[in-house]
Amino acid sequence: MKRLSISSLAFAILSFGVSAVFAAQRPEDQRSPVYGVKLPEDYRDWTLISVAHEAGRNNDIRAILGNDIAVKAFRAGKRPFPDGSVIVRLAWQYQSSSRNDTVFPAPQSFVAGPPTNIQVSVKDSKRYAASGGWGYGQFENGMANQDTMLTQSCFACHVKLDALEKNADLVFTAYSQ
Amino acid sequence: MKRLSISSLAFAILSFGVSAVFAAQRPEDQRSPVYGVKLPEDYRDWTLISVAHEAGRNNDIRAILGNDIAVKAFRAGKRPFPDGSVIVRLAWQYQSSSRNDTVFPAPQSFVAGPPTNIQVSVKDSKRYAASGGWGYGQFENGMANQDTMLTQSCFACHVKLDALEKNADLVFTAYSQ
Repeated sequence: MKRLSISSLAFAILSFGVSAVFAAQRPEDQRSPVYGVKLPEDYRDWTLISVAHEAGRNNDIRAILGNDIAVKAFRAGKRPFPDGSVIVRLAWQYQSSSRNDTVFPAPQSFVAGPPTNIQVSVKDSKRYAASGGWGYGQFENGMANQDTMLTQSCFACHVKLDALEKNADLVFTAYSQ
Repeated sequence: MKRLSISSLAFAILSFGVSAVFAAQRPEDQRSPVYGVKLPEDYRDWTLISVAHEAGRNNDIRAILGNDIAVKAFRAGKRPFPDGSVIVRLAWQYQSSSRNDTVFPAPQSFVAGPPTNIQVSVKDSKRYAASGGWGYGQFENGMANQDTMLTQSCFACHVKLDALEKNADLVFTAYSQ
């Protein structure tokens, strides 16, 4: 009986430990370093802003989605983006589709393969004043990448756009009708 | 006085004629030949299914959106698609972005230029039984292309997929997470 109690206690402690570890890793709790940006829960249902292909090292095909505040600003051409704007960039491996090319008149079809990563930009002009009003995060398999240097490279790149276009508010993507 | 009345009458007839022509061309009234498919009013807010690049003659970059019925089926892997599924393929000219490449580490950015056309697939297994349950339409500037041969070429191409994948239900696009 005593033995059983100790086993039960050990099991309870183990369960608690495992739960705690899982709780800490729940995707909805995951936040990017530096900015504390989360992957929005319903981003996959957000409205399309545009699409792009990055050749070179990334070699991905991507879609840029926005929440209602961001999409409204894109459609109205409003800059800077209002606080609360969130832009999500999804990317997938850029793959030639031999299946589609069997049907199409020539080898011409490139499609989205497995997902690579998701990058999120959140506008909060006070909280993120030091980075032009934007907070950033990169996510793989729903988990926030915890690499501080990688996360800081978001602003380091976006801020370069400011020299080219003062009124772009550090956003590369234009809305596609 | 009589002259004025005749002028008024002529003006009224002319106005009626112009109105009738404009009414016939209202985008929301426009339907594709063969299938009578309309451009759905709110398609631009629909959920993203996937993205692709067509090289070759089209040389476009595209996004495939779906209405709730279609997206639910895509996510559940349900085939054939239920009646009421609507899939909208938007396409834009595939353009190298010299602006983005100024900022990026190498020439690597390809973006969506001006829109080319929008293709719509509507599932109605009874109405479109003769074309595998799908009705098709192509739209430019919101207007249905009235070319019958072009419209018939949709099914002529989609049906080729059946020889490769019996369970694709004539749909090229796969859902991208």
